[in-house]
Amino acid sequence: MRVIGIDPGLRNLGWGVIDMEGSRLSHVANGICHGAGGTLAERLLALHGQLTDIVEKYAPGAAAVEQTFVNKDGAGTLKLGQARGIALLVPAQFGLDVGEYAPNTVKKTVVGVGHAGKEQVAHMVRVQLPGVELAGADAADALAIAICHAHHGAARALKEKVRA
Amino acid sequence: MRVIGIDPGLRNLGWGVIDMEGSRLSHVANGICHGAGGTLAERLLALHGQLTDIVEKYAPGAAAVEQTFVNKDGAGTLKLGQARGIALLVPAQFGLDVGEYAPNTVKKTVVGVGHAGKEQVAHMVRVQLPGVELAGADAADALAIAICHAHHGAARALKEKVRA
Repeated sequence: MRVIGIDPGLRNLGWGVIDMEGSRLSHVANGICHGAGGTLAERLLALHGQLTDIVEKYAPGAAAVEQTFVNKDGAGTLKLGQARGIALLVPAQFGLDVGEYAPNTVKKTVVGVGHAGKEQVAHMVRVQLPGVELAGADAADALAIAICHAHHGAARALKEKVRA
Repeated sequence: MRVIGIDPGLRNLGWGVIDMEGSRLSHVANGICHGAGGTLAERLLALHGQLTDIVEKYAPGAAAVEQTFVNKDGAGTLKLGQARGIALLVPAQFGLDVGEYAPNTVKKTVVGVGHAGKEQVAHMVRVQLPGVELAGADAADALAIAICHAHHGAARALKEKVRA
């Protein structure tokens, strides 16, 4: 199973692609899309185009997006929501199911505790995907989301097998 | 000039298309896209598909989206943001410039005051687009946004003419 994880953001949208064979994970690629440009519509269009190219290129079979932490900054939440709309739309346009995981679930799966810092997440991503070169903190988070989805997907598949 | 106005929402996304010849406005079509379906990604995909069909069918030359009112309800703001991402993306995918107007600007342009109620907006939309049948309050708001953009666009064009 090939999984793409996406950490949405209007300025920096992290993405990471991994392969899972049995319980073995391996890194495929990671990077950051930039919503640069003039108007908000142009920035969203840029994100959509870049993310579409990535899904086309790496052809994942599953996708997962981080659930956004809603804070008191309404304007920030709105911006993130707009970027998140694109992050959810693109894999859906390729017919992929899109899993959603809360940041704490991602951290708990990858690091073992729900309150881990960014550096700890990046460290555990490096441990679980030997040889990976991280394009940045947002890309590390995206790979963590992909790892989380791979583990949860594997658990689901096992449950269905046991039931069948 | 043909203008599409969009009032974003995850459940109900209002849209309205008008024509402007000189200073004369006429109604083309209006309606509501529904983000029904299972997951959030599927709902956004449904909105994207419906809105794409509308822009393809009516081929507007300009687009305008209402600026979202950011309130204290973080989860609501995030939902709206995701729908708004789609509302901004679709016209941009067709190469259209996308104007953004605050609700108060729309009301001031269409009704004359910034604090007008929904009924008053719908009434003035009916007055300015004789014969229009409104698909609902969100469609009326979308037509008001289109009217606002047409007036502002006409003012801009006149200014450029005077300058030339």
